[in-house]
Formats: sequence, structure tokens, C-alpha cells
Amino acid sequence: MMIIMKPGSTEVEIEHVIEQIRENGLTSHLSVGEDHTVIGAVGDTHAIATAVFEVLDGVESVIRISQPYKLASRQFHPKNSIFPLDGFTVGGDEITIIAGPCSVESREQLLETAQAVHAAGAHALRGGVFKPRTSPYTFQGLGEEGLELIAEARQVTGMPVVVEITSITQLDIMIKYVDVIQVGARNMQNFALLSALGKTKTPVLLKRGMSATIEELLMASEYILSGGNQRVMLCERGIRTFETATRNTTDINAIPVLKSLTHLPVILDPSHSTGHADYVTAVARAAIAAGADGLIIEVHPDPAHALSDGRQSLKPEKFAELVKQVGQIAEVMGRKLAPVATVLQA
Amino acid sequence: MMIIMKPGSTEVEIEHVIEQIRENGLTSHLSVGEDHTVIGAVGDTHAIATAVFEVLDGVESVIRISQPYKLASRQFHPKNSIFPLDGFTVGGDEITIIAGPCSVESREQLLETAQAVHAAGAHALRGGVFKPRTSPYTFQGLGEEGLELIAEARQVTGMPVVVEITSITQLDIMIKYVDVIQVGARNMQNFALLSALGKTKTPVLLKRGMSATIEELLMASEYILSGGNQRVMLCERGIRTFETATRNTTDINAIPVLKSLTHLPVILDPSHSTGHADYVTAVARAAIAAGADGLIIEVHPDPAHALSDGRQSLKPEKFAELVKQVGQIAEVMGRKLAPVATVLQA
Amino acid sequence: MMIIMKPGSTEVEIEHVIEQIRENGLTSHLSVGEDHTVIGAVGDTHAIATAVFEVLDGVESVIRISQPYKLASRQFHPKNSIFPLDGFTVGGDEITIIAGPCSVESREQLLETAQAVHAAGAHALRGGVFKPRTSPYTFQGLGEEGLELIAEARQVTGMPVVVEITSITQLDIMIKYVDVIQVGARNMQNFALLSALGKTKTPVLLKRGMSATIEELLMASEYILSGGNQRVMLCERGIRTFETATRNTTDINAIPVLKSLTHLPVILDPSHSTGHADYVTAVARAAIAAGADGLIIEVHPDPAHALSDGRQSLKPEKFAELVKQVGQIAEVMGRKLAPVATVLQA
Amino acid sequence: MMIIMKPGSTEVEIEHVIEQIRENGLTSHLSVGEDHTVIGAVGDTHAIATAVFEVLDGVESVIRISQPYKLASRQFHPKNSIFPLDGFTVGGDEITIIAGPCSVESREQLLETAQAVHAAGAHALRGGVFKPRTSPYTFQGLGEEGLELIAEARQVTGMPVVVEITSITQLDIMIKYVDVIQVGARNMQNFALLSALGKTKTPVLLKRGMSATIEELLMASEYILSGGNQRVMLCERGIRTFETATRNTTDINAIPVLKSLTHLPVILDPSHSTGHADYVTAVARAAIAAGADGLIIEVHPDPAHALSDGRQSLKPEKFAELVKQVGQIAEVMGRKLAPVATVLQA
Repeated sequence: MMIIMKPGSTEVEIEHVIEQIRENGLTSHLSVGEDHTVIGAVGDTHAIATAVFEVLDGVESVIRISQPYKLASRQFHPKNSIFPLDGFTVGGDEITIIAGPCSVESREQLLETAQAVHAAGAHALRGGVFKPRTSPYTFQGLGEEGLELIAEARQVTGMPVVVEITSITQLDIMIKYVDVIQVGARNMQNFALLSALGKTKTPVLLKRGMSATIEELLMASEYILSGGNQRVMLCERGIRTFETATRNTTDINAIPVLKSLTHLPVILDPSHSTGHADYVTAVARAAIAAGADGLIIEVHPDPAHALSDGRQSLKPEKFAELVKQVGQIAEVMGRKLAPVATVLQA
Repeated sequence: MMIIMKPGSTEVEIEHVIEQIRENGLTSHLSVGEDHTVIGAVGDTHAIATAVFEVLDGVESVIRISQPYKLASRQFHPKNSIFPLDGFTVGGDEITIIAGPCSVESREQLLETAQAVHAAGAHALRGGVFKPRTSPYTFQGLGEEGLELIAEARQVTGMPVVVEITSITQLDIMIKYVDVIQVGARNMQNFALLSALGKTKTPVLLKRGMSATIEELLMASEYILSGGNQRVMLCERGIRTFETATRNTTDINAIPVLKSLTHLPVILDPSHSTGHADYVTAVARAAIAAGADGLIIEVHPDPAHALSDGRQSLKPEKFAELVKQVGQIAEVMGRKLAPVATVLQA
Repeated sequence: MMIIMKPGSTEVEIEHVIEQIRENGLTSHLSVGEDHTVIGAVGDTHAIATAVFEVLDGVESVIRISQPYKLASRQFHPKNSIFPLDGFTVGGDEITIIAGPCSVESREQLLETAQAVHAAGAHALRGGVFKPRTSPYTFQGLGEEGLELIAEARQVTGMPVVVEITSITQLDIMIKYVDVIQVGARNMQNFALLSALGKTKTPVLLKRGMSATIEELLMASEYILSGGNQRVMLCERGIRTFETATRNTTDINAIPVLKSLTHLPVILDPSHSTGHADYVTAVARAAIAAGADGLIIEVHPDPAHALSDGRQSLKPEKFAELVKQVGQIAEVMGRKLAPVATVLQA
Repeated sequence: MMIIMKPGSTEVEIEHVIEQIRENGLTSHLSVGEDHTVIGAVGDTHAIATAVFEVLDGVESVIRISQPYKLASRQFHPKNSIFPLDGFTVGGDEITIIAGPCSVESREQLLETAQAVHAAGAHALRGGVFKPRTSPYTFQGLGEEGLELIAEARQVTGMPVVVEITSITQLDIMIKYVDVIQVGARNMQNFALLSALGKTKTPVLLKRGMSATIEELLMASEYILSGGNQRVMLCERGIRTFETATRNTTDINAIPVLKSLTHLPVILDPSHSTGHADYVTAVARAAIAAGADGLIIEVHPDPAHALSDGRQSLKPEKFAELVKQVGQIAEVMGRKLAPVATVLQA
């Protein structure tokens, strides 16, 4: 850390900063400029808040030089994290496509969608059963009943399943039914939940909060990693900006930035990041071209009667076309789509 | 709701929209323009998602005309909600000032701060015991032990206490110890938590998420109100923008906008909305001048050794000056500071 | 336009709205809902401001249904605008790559860069001679002297040249020397400049302002188009958001959105939209995969000694690699790179 | 400046940085940390771009320690800049209120408004004659004819006049007619215009761009100041954020931040920063309570027939009430409203 002193800071103030550096187990290093004295605080600073110095008299600002995250950092773990998931791997050469309805609505809707996305080339099935809805008056999900339907769809198609958790109280039942637990954008900084997930062995798909910086996303992953669970996938799902032509703004820069900062797999959710079915395929192609490791896509057989997010859901035939195009982009990138699950019991 | 059809939409498409309107228990009303046909959906639409229509073929966009919230709306409850809190009221003519440390760190620190803010004119005591911290490596709060200290400070000063909840699992113990439960910005859309709070009788201080719109804040309050708990205070605490000179951007517009849209009390947190002790007092004055019903302020006797948020904490003497200035602005507004608690057992 | 009346609006207020509709040459259409009366204003509204109705008593809000732009709209001009530019076309099947230094610094630097980007496959040369710099104390460009160097580079390589205009006073000299006049982000709403460009025949590359919406970009293009100049290319160059890991946030959604709303060619500037050479190639690939018609890229033979924007400039060899990869993505998209200029006088 | 090297940077890379520091006339200072070497560049750096170092191999980032502006900085000019303007002063104890219509529309409208705001207590008259409008199809202002009307209103009321310049070509005529030249948000980084204004003696009201940081606003003022014109007033007019309930978000934090960073007067424009007449008065009070030196307010005798910005214009009687309330807040702040102009020729 570098502590920048205000112009005209006194020797006593500088002495206090040096003392605070010492109290925090670091060593200090002084550099006197024209207007500003700068004091370096040398040592392992990742667990020390900048505020410790910012509040001292005479301090203008404090700059963190080392990243505040460790376990997620590519600096300390240069190779990609690749982890297996029921017949394919995430984070390596293979591109993973997760697809399914926003919400599980009924047995029929789920099984129809699951079989359609499986046939079109999806590798894993998504489907929400506990829905975080802005309005208390709209459909809140099927709850546990939905999990049993998800389990059946898993059985029928052979695909692993990805389901969002919305409360720490759902953790036990999630672990029982689900292959990958999704943490939604609204819970990215639900630290109690992240800590609890860190103590499980279930892979986690961690979505970026809609106004979270890339660094905050990595810090959120650090909560899970530092608990002992190393299987975290990061997901860009669009950020909130002033633009209203789309539901969110896809931060495509985040793909190469994350790939350079972290060894964790990075996937993109073009359904939420655009909010409009017409733009999903273009942005899905862009994600793979930018270096993403996978996609998560909302598909519904009858978007007009979806109980949530119909506007951004693809029909199965449009999804099949997306898979084909994404596969072609993957080849240009020297990668390939992961193999599709075969039904074991068939 | 108004459903705007694309130019060139067909009669069959228009018929489908009208059918969907009927299926949702509404009546339709057609208006044919030069380029666009517009179909009104008339009836009680607050529980109907716009997506129900957006996904239909030929639909360009759907515009909600009625507010999606009801219980929070001033339209349906024109008078201010005023509720009592241990000797004073919130939401009426009286201005409420809540103050205290960001985190409860020790008995000595808490009692010293509590007595100082009480002497300076605060009406309620704030203090965090479960801390939502960006980094898993920094101080996470004292937990339940902190709640007992809070209870002691309550006893000593006579002030009601405001404490943040960070997980639904803390609800029982919170209700036991705390006068007002604070929902922090990161949990504003933790809908499971909001629903649970709606079933209690404890007043809730609901903070705006850092990228939540004013409408989303009102929808979040609707989760609590619709559960049966009518005692909700809203809190503007700054939003995230491109500006980096301050930690957040205080949305001062939100004060008159909220006062016109809702009957709920509105308070401002200038400590978080500026992130810097030097700017807290100016923005506190501005809030009251804009029509806010109260303030929540971080105060620490020794900010340099605070375990969190020291940079934005006022020293007690600076806080006393803030109370004085805010009182003068209140008078211009035809209001006055609430009476300070007297210690009952003294 | 739809005029939404407040709940409880009076008959007199409604009558005033209808009168205002008539005064503006439109016809009205009434729709009475549960809470709100909605009045449609039917006719050609693209030249009527919503404010005309917003200020009337009893009006809650006004919603524009038709787009406020006409000439830029795909609705009125369904086919792509394709225009020729010295041996290739922009906006059709061919992908155009514009490359060169941020600033023209010297004859040697410009010619070396021009020949390098030409050899690597660029189709047009960029180079700034009037530089809009945040600080008055940094390099402001070579001015007219730079234009003569640009003309020489044009001669030597056969490539058309693209130069930014920063003041209406430069217009005459620009038209004399330059093939495409660039309007930078900071001048996107310099309407006096846009109007003047509308009266020329020189093609314009119009960059999106850093906080301009897509609709505002289209409205800015309308200033040029309505003056009579139909050769406008739009350029996404990143928008300003809260994220600080990159200089701007590339709004990749803007590519498919613009391609659906307008017939004008759309190109992307990954140098500015990322601000970092390490991320330029990934985002360039993404742009073409999303459907962009071209790219504009900063290249410098010695970025460490560039007088501006060195950080985001590619070295020629890295640019050559970018062209190759972009060409492969173009093929997947059923497109191909435009032919490279041959020097006529050679 | 501090140059942060990447972990594992080589001695050769460090040597290159030190050489670059020397080439720029600065001295270097080395500090070796656990992961990172940090090299201080000591000397007068305000005219050196950080990019000069960012492009060197092995450099991770460069941090500017000194402010990039000098003449605007309170550090080099601790006392408030106070300058006279026709019978009152701006930037001292007196609060200045500028008011008038968005656009000059007719002689009758302007004179009626001018006399009304004068009677209500305004100190200067605003009125646009060259209008920067988003759409080429809406009213663009009366142009020079409007300036003559402005001159007449000046004569009749005795108030100095404030008019926006939208093109460098209007400069001569502006200087002839106008007391304060306003630079609008869209031209805040029209550097050619700023430089030209720096060579005049006419006071400038410089509005913050809608997505400009506070530092960029100060850098823009530096263009004018460094040309020799010291009479610059800064104006916060709201920034663009994700919130749509208001036209812009008033950055009230900017008031105390600017007052601490610069000696220039700071005024606020609540008409644009809220975009809605209902919220103007509350935010005007907040501005003065936060420490602003003045206000600029849109007033129109008949907002329903205003040719621009009617929605945010106050009627004269509501403006009179605003002046009264603002005067009361000013007193709490130990300030007072400036004296109102008396008509000299009367």
C-alpha cells in the first residue's frame, strides 16, 4: 500500500502513519516528493483495509497495490482451473452451454424444454425454483416441488442441473438435488450465503451483481474459495448503466479482463445481459469470440406463456441455431463444444 | 398497461394480444395510429408482469401506466405514515437522528460512543454486529456478543437501537434485542429476508441498493408491507455512478421524489452516500433542506482505530456541530428535532 | 404519442390536452382506465417534443411511440446503406478495418505506421491532427501541418484517410484533405458542427458520446442526414460506467441493437472502448461476431513514445494478428475482409 | 507520480522506467515491496500524461499523486475567488440567483419573464438564443435576433445577462451583448471553444458535462484559466445515471467536494438536475444548505407553451417562493442573498 500525505503534512502526522504501519505488521518506506510525501507500507496487505490509514490526520489517500484477493488470482495460480462435471469439463478447451427455462413452471414445460435443449446440444440444464422477483405480486417459483421435477429432468436427459439459491435456508435441499448451485446477481454480496457455500463441495456458478465491479466479483468468489470450495465459475450477466435500449449492458470487456486476472472459468449470460431474445444469439457469439468458457441461456417452448422472463427466452429452434453458430466461433478460437450427455439408463 | 404494436403488425397478432388481455382478467381498448396500433389493457394490473405481453409476436413494447406498488403508494394512502419509537415519532414534524459506530467493536467503544451521541442530541443508536464486508479477510463483526453490548448501551442511554440484519437466520435474535432492524443496501433485494420481516412487528429501516432505482426500493418495501408489517422507513444511502471523487453519489433528488410517491418516512445516510467525514455535515444539511425526515450518521470516538468505515465516521464533537446545524435547517423547514431520550432508570 | 393523465385528473384538464393535440396538427383518441385516462395523439409526431404535453396540468407522463428519428431508421429504409470508399464498400458484406496512430506526431512515425497497417491488411488510415485532450498542458496535435503528412501517407499507401474534426472552423481544410471526417465522442452533440457536416458530401464517422444513449446517437446522425449528407457511419467506442478495470465499457449490445434500428453501417473502436492494448483483439473479434461492419484500431510502432493513447495502441505485429483473427470470424459470419488498397501510382 | 511494476518485472524493465522518468525531467525514487516494485517520479508532473509510463513493459499501473490542474486548485489559491458582476459579487458571502426562460421565444415572453424574475428577487437573467437540441426537428432558438431582445431585457431590468454559446463562431457577437457566457454540458469538452474563451475577459459559467467527473470539470476550467481569463463559475447540473425517475441525478456531493478542491464559485442548476418543476425548489434549498454560491433556475410565465424545457420551468409565483425559502437557508449558512439590481435609467 502507498499512503499519500497531503501537501504540508507535518512530521508528527507522518510519524503516526509509520506507527500505524508498524502496528499492522508491515514495514514503512518514505519517499518525499515536491508537494506530497508518500509512505509505502510493505508486507502482506491483502487482509488490511485501506481505511486503517485513510482516517489518520494528514493522509490524503491510500492506494492498494497488491490485489485484495489471493485464491482467485491468476498471479498465485497461473493455470486455468478446470473441473469435471458429469462427462465434460468446465474451464478447459471445451465450451459449456447451460440452457433451460427461467422458472420451472410444470412437469410438462420442464421436460419438454429439457429434452429440446438436450437435443439442440446443451450440456447442462438450468431452471429456477426459488425466484427472486422485484414484485411480491408475481410468480415466486415452485419451491421444493420444482426441485423434484428438476431431478426427473436430470434423470431423463442425463444433463447435470444448475439451480439458483435465494436463501441460506435452502442450502441442505439444494445440495441434495443440484449439481451446480447458482448465486444470482442480487445475492452476489450476500456474504453469509457465500461463506456457507464455501463449506460445501458443490460447484457454484457466481453471477456478477448488476452494479458490482470486476474486483468485487472476485472478492465475492474469494469468500467461497477461502472456505475450501474451489469449484467456482464466474458469470457476467450485464451491468446496470444509463442505456435503456437493453435491459442491461453486457460488459464484454469483462471477459478478457477476468481471463487475465483469474484462473476461474468465465461464462456469459446473454439472456439477462441483453434482456431481449432478438439480441441473445449475437451476444452469445461475441462472448465466445472474446474468450468466454461457456454460456447460460434461457429457453422456453412457449415464451408467450412463460411465468417469468419470457421476453428474453429463445424458442428451442432458435436455441439450436445459436448452438450451431457458437460452435463455429469456438472452432476459430481453437476450442470445441463439450460433448453432449448421453442418458445412462437408456 | 399500453401494448404498443410494431408497425405492420397483423390482425392475427393484434387478436392474440387481445386474447392475452382477456386471459389476464383485463379488458382491451384499441387505438390505431399512423405507424403503430396501441392496445390498452384496462383493469387491476399491478400484479401482472409486462413480459406477459412483450413476448407476443408483433409487440414492440409494453408500458406500465399504474405503479406496480400499492401499499407503499401515497396515491392509496395520502397522509404521511407516522410511527412512534420510544418517546418520539418518525415521519411527522420531528426530525430523527440515528447515530453510532459502523461496527460494535468493544464494550468501552460502544458505551463511550453511545453516551457521546446521546449528549450531542441523537435520538437512536446505530451499531453493526454482523458486518457485510467486501473482503472475507477483514473484521466481520462481534455477532451475538455485540447484541448484548447494544442492549446495555440501550439501557444506559435510553435510546432505541438500530442494528443491521445480514441473514434470515439472525431474525429471532434480532427481534429479541433490537428496536429497528436495518436491511442494508446489499440485501435490499434479498426477498426471502424481506418476506420474513414482513411477518414481524419490528420496525424496519430499508436501505436503497447501490444500483436500485427508486421504484425498486418501493417494490422492496412492498414485500415487507404486504406481509403485514407497516412500519418501514426508507433510507437513501447513495448510488453507484461513474464519479470517483466520493464513495457514492448522494441522490438528493430521491428525497422529494420519494416524499411525493410514498407516505413512508425517508431518511438519508450521508456517511455512506459521501464516504468521507469532510462532506457528511454539508450533505446532512442538504437532506433536511430537501425534506428528509431524518438522518443516520456514523460516529466514532477514534476513527483512526475503527475496525470499519473509519474514514467516513465523525468524531463526537463534529457530530454535535452537525446536530446543531441540522436543527437550524429544520426550523426553516417548519420542523424541529425530536426530543432526546431521558434515561428511565436514572 | 400517449399522454397519461394523473389519477383524478379533471375533465377540464383532459380538454386542455385534447386542445393542445389539435393545435399541434394531431388527432386525439381517448382511453379511460381504472386509475388513469390515456389520450393518444395520432399523426406525424417525430418533430413534436413530449414536453409540449408534459407541462399541462393533470398530465403524469408522455410516452413517445414512434421513433423520434426518421432518416436513420431502418423502418423507413429497410436495406443496409452501402457506400463506396476508394475501392471497397462500407456497410455491405465486406468488413472494413481502419487503423493508424492516435495522433500524427511526425512524418516518420506516420509513414512507418501507415505502411505497417497497410501491409497488415488495413483498408483505411486514421490519424488525429487536432486532438481533444482533457488537459491543456498535454500535446494538442500538429494541426494543418499534420494534414499534409496525412495526404502524403494517403499517396504512398493508396488508403483513404479518416481524421477527427474538433471545431467547425476546420471544416474547409478537412474537406480538402480528408476522405472521412470523424466526429469524436465529445462532439457527438455539437449540433452546430453536425449541421455543417450535413451540408457537405464528405462521409462522416460519427462516434457515440461516452454517455449518449443509442437513441441520442441516432438523433445526432439525423442532424447530418437531414442536411442532405447520407454517408454516415456510426461508431460504438465504449460508454462510461462505474467499472474502472477498463477505460470505458464496450456496449456490445449496441451492435445488434443498432443493426436492427438503423440501415447505417456500424463499426466498433475497441482501442477506446477498452483503453488497454491487452484487451483490444478479444473485443475486436467479439464486435465482428456480434455483427459489426468494421473496426477502427489504434496502432503505433513505438507505443512507449506515443504522444497520446500509447497504452491502448497495438504494435504493428499484434495488429496483423488481429486482422487475421477478425478475418476468420468474418468468414463464420458469411462475410469477408474488404480488399486492401493497391497503390495506384506504383 | 508512482509507477507500479508488475510482480516479476525485470531489472531491465525497471531501468527503462527510470530512464523515461529522467527524459521527462523528473527524478526517480525506488521502493521494493513484497510483490511489486514502486518507482516514484518526483518533480512537476502536472503536464505529463500517465500514459508515458503505462506503455512501458513491466508496468502495471501509474498513479498520479498531484492534481492535474493548477490554476483552478485551492491548494495554490487558498482564498475564494470573488468577482464583481454589475452591482453584486459572485463567490463571496452573497448568494446569486440567475433566472429566466430556457429559450428566448419572443419579445413579450422575454420581457414578461425578465420583469417577473426581477420582481421576485433574481440577480441575473438567463435566456438561450442558440439552443442545443437533441432533435434537428425541434425549435433551435432565435439566434442573433434573440440577443437583441436579451439586450433590451437587460436595459429594462438592470440585470446582467447570461447566455449559452454553442459554437466558436458565435464568440464575437456574444462578447458584444452578453455579461456572462454560458458553456453548456454538451460543450464542456469542446476544447477549441474553451481555449477561445480563455482569451476573452468575459466571465464564463461552465456547466459540468452530464457524464464528466469533477476532475474533468476542473480540467475544463483550466483551459479557460490558462488562457488568461480568471472569471470562471462552475455549475453542477446533474449527471447521467441509471435512475429514470428524474431527468438527471443531482450530484449534491459535488458542492462540498468542489468547494474544497477549488477557489472558483460553484452554482447549481436544479431545473436541469431534476428535470421536473415539482422538485426544483427542494433541490435549490439543498444546494444552498450544502454550500453552493448560487443557483440558475428556469422560469416561464406559461410553461405549457414554452418551446423548450417547459416541464422543468417554474411559474413566476413559484419562483418567488423559491427565492424566499433559499434566502432563509442562506441565513442559517451565515450568508445572504445578493442585492437586486435597480434600473439605472429609471
